[in-house]
Amino acid sequence: MSKYDIIVLGSGPGGYVTAIRASQLGFKTAIVEKENLGGVCLNWGCIPTKALLKSAQVFEYLKHANDYGLSVKEFDKDFNAVVKRSRNVAEGMSKGVQFLMKKNKIDVIEGFGKLKTGKKVDVDGKEYSADHIIIATGARSRELPSLPQDGKKVIGYREAMTLTEQPKKMIVVGSGAIGVEFAYFYNSMGTEVTIVEFLPNVVPVEDIDVSKQLEKSFKKSGIKIMTSAEVTKVDTSGKGVKATVKTAKGEEILEADIILSAVGIKTNIENIGLEDVGIAVDRDKILVNNYYQTNIPGYYAIGDVTPGQALAHVASAEGILCVEKIAGQLVEPLDYGNIPGCTYASPEIASVGLTEKQAKEKGYDIKVGKFPFSASGKASASGAKDGFVKVIFDAKYGEWLGCHMIGAGVTDMIAEAVLGRKLETTGHEVLKAVHPHPTMSEAVMEAVADAYGEVIHL
Amino acid sequence: MSKYDIIVLGSGPGGYVTAIRASQLGFKTAIVEKENLGGVCLNWGCIPTKALLKSAQVFEYLKHANDYGLSVKEFDKDFNAVVKRSRNVAEGMSKGVQFLMKKNKIDVIEGFGKLKTGKKVDVDGKEYSADHIIIATGARSRELPSLPQDGKKVIGYREAMTLTEQPKKMIVVGSGAIGVEFAYFYNSMGTEVTIVEFLPNVVPVEDIDVSKQLEKSFKKSGIKIMTSAEVTKVDTSGKGVKATVKTAKGEEILEADIILSAVGIKTNIENIGLEDVGIAVDRDKILVNNYYQTNIPGYYAIGDVTPGQALAHVASAEGILCVEKIAGQLVEPLDYGNIPGCTYASPEIASVGLTEKQAKEKGYDIKVGKFPFSASGKASASGAKDGFVKVIFDAKYGEWLGCHMIGAGVTDMIAEAVLGRKLETTGHEVLKAVHPHPTMSEAVMEAVADAYGEVIHL
Repeated sequence: MSKYDIIVLGSGPGGYVTAIRASQLGFKTAIVEKENLGGVCLNWGCIPTKALLKSAQVFEYLKHANDYGLSVKEFDKDFNAVVKRSRNVAEGMSKGVQFLMKKNKIDVIEGFGKLKTGKKVDVDGKEYSADHIIIATGARSRELPSLPQDGKKVIGYREAMTLTEQPKKMIVVGSGAIGVEFAYFYNSMGTEVTIVEFLPNVVPVEDIDVSKQLEKSFKKSGIKIMTSAEVTKVDTSGKGVKATVKTAKGEEILEADIILSAVGIKTNIENIGLEDVGIAVDRDKILVNNYYQTNIPGYYAIGDVTPGQALAHVASAEGILCVEKIAGQLVEPLDYGNIPGCTYASPEIASVGLTEKQAKEKGYDIKVGKFPFSASGKASASGAKDGFVKVIFDAKYGEWLGCHMIGAGVTDMIAEAVLGRKLETTGHEVLKAVHPHPTMSEAVMEAVADAYGEVIHL
Repeated sequence: MSKYDIIVLGSGPGGYVTAIRASQLGFKTAIVEKENLGGVCLNWGCIPTKALLKSAQVFEYLKHANDYGLSVKEFDKDFNAVVKRSRNVAEGMSKGVQFLMKKNKIDVIEGFGKLKTGKKVDVDGKEYSADHIIIATGARSRELPSLPQDGKKVIGYREAMTLTEQPKKMIVVGSGAIGVEFAYFYNSMGTEVTIVEFLPNVVPVEDIDVSKQLEKSFKKSGIKIMTSAEVTKVDTSGKGVKATVKTAKGEEILEADIILSAVGIKTNIENIGLEDVGIAVDRDKILVNNYYQTNIPGYYAIGDVTPGQALAHVASAEGILCVEKIAGQLVEPLDYGNIPGCTYASPEIASVGLTEKQAKEKGYDIKVGKFPFSASGKASASGAKDGFVKVIFDAKYGEWLGCHMIGAGVTDMIAEAVLGRKLETTGHEVLKAVHPHPTMSEAVMEAVADAYGEVIHL
């Protein structure tokens, strides 16, 4: 029986990053993966969707070439080529992880890992033991009882990124990051898209101003949006699919070729031996402490299977922290209040910290600043005037409570707010950090200035 | 004679931002402008060039649409339409400044302002007085004796952005930001471009790794580059223009339609009354203290006419600081070591702080980290794998000495480094600030990790 210092179950970003960091720290490490190295994120999530969205972005440029003094006579998308490019990118990334495993001397054990007592893992009948076993098995698309997925007409994100034929009409149920990104992609490709959101606004975790801006931008681009709406019944018996949608106005039947269900995720914690070992679970999540230790010594859990935000960067940060703690390093627990969230449609969304509503609910006396990209020179030059940066500060101590951005390229701009908040910056310090001109990033400085009555370009 | 609290001479970003901040602070303010509100930056600099570059970027997407699963049968650029779009953007911005002047109740005095003793300004024969006069007259394209500009065949940046006919061949002398941006733009539009740089590398103020990457990328895109090369003679007598270029190999004659001289700037300090008032000047710059006071009480100078970096964001920061000091606020002098510099060609360049060479010359024991975008998932998905992020830390105290980026979108990413450095971050803090996945900004985190032997994706 092979003996390791650390075995990681699952090779998504949480898993493989954990394994690499463990190896860097001198641990003999193995990783167990039943399918593709890189897990959902690399193969069926973050990376291939960003490839699809890039094709959509370029396609939009073709449609609007005239705006830039250019002319395009005949152009088209090749839906299958777009999907193929995305798959190639995903494959490249998965190979990259293979290379990283090899380079870091991490054993890759192929198969379905099941936890055993005595710090052992069974992989398809073969047993391995380790001093520390880290569960990083991730999650999958959640199924609603009223919306069972058949993988053909009612699909999850996984099928949505490998359709062999482009649907003419599509209903997207749920408007979190996944729903919104696919709605944008398919609409851009020419599919008629309707978003059905249960809550009163799209991207409901975001600040209300961001939700409203996205609704405006999406409607302008031809996406239909139904909010405070629920799919109560689905009929797949005919050629396409019929969805009964209930709103305050009553029931309405929508027809489409495909329904994409994007109503959240379900953790992969079934049949991995949690019960045998006695690992405590609360509803859908494995319970862990600040260092990702479960209730059973030697067993840890990180990523989507634990209660923190189900995001790749959270999983990676948790895994690194977990093994650094095992190595005896002095580690600071992760600050879940300072995790950025991104949505990569057009306009992009990026945010960190409290929304204005949350800040008020928590009883803060706040200063709010907002700067629209319509007032930004760089945005004008780029033809990207949609959106804004909104910042929220505590009026009393100057703490940067929240930063909310919607617009071109903002997913690459939110890091400034994350770092600033980590370093406990005040608004004045952000304001006096000289932002280069002309950039979109000036909007952060201007939004902060607006919060303090010092905005220049408004 | 009209009496003001503050008169600002020149309405470039330094000037008009100063005037707005002055007005916010309660000063009765006027601004003197001889030409277009917004000065060079808005009308002939930052903004219109970014518009041209955006057209070039979109044109590149048309050329490479196939890479994204798209097809374009017939496409072209309309050079005049591209230039017209740029002019429209500039005009829009200039109108925006007009609006801001009105909204902030700033009097706009049209004409050529000349300083008089007794804190007065003469504008085309009419006199105005103020308690504080701020000189913000900016700069223009510098002329080399060996390369006199005739505005037709030998031009500066101003003509380069409004040519009515696209040159077939162009020589760009100088490879700072302006030279490099125009070289990229014209090459993208189909002009044969040769860069002639006096120093051994292009973008000579940047870290040598950045220069080398840009050379590689530019050569791949068809731009010819001659370094350690000097234009010694120009002959404009024939149809085009002949430039004698001297290198270590000897002399060579290049033929072109147009030569763009982009060898730096010359301040606009002639005939504005400096001598009459007795304001001290050193070579091309007005001497000022930390609060932009000249040697004569009541006279100040900010922006390109002073010794700091000749950049719009420096001018704005100086102007704001200058009037806040006049208003009696507690102000911290500007840290000229923490000013970001950007070049908006493709790949973009953004940097702040010391280069590796400078850090070594200053005697620092350094830790250097580098992360190439070729290893970034987001870059792969976006088809933008050129470039890298390079970071330099002081090994002893962990100070973030420098950050150098080249790649897609990096001009919007440098703000993180500027703010982090202002807040005296350590590498470890940057590393533990959770950067969202998948973004280009992760490369900053990974580069820092590389400096400390903790990089994951290499």
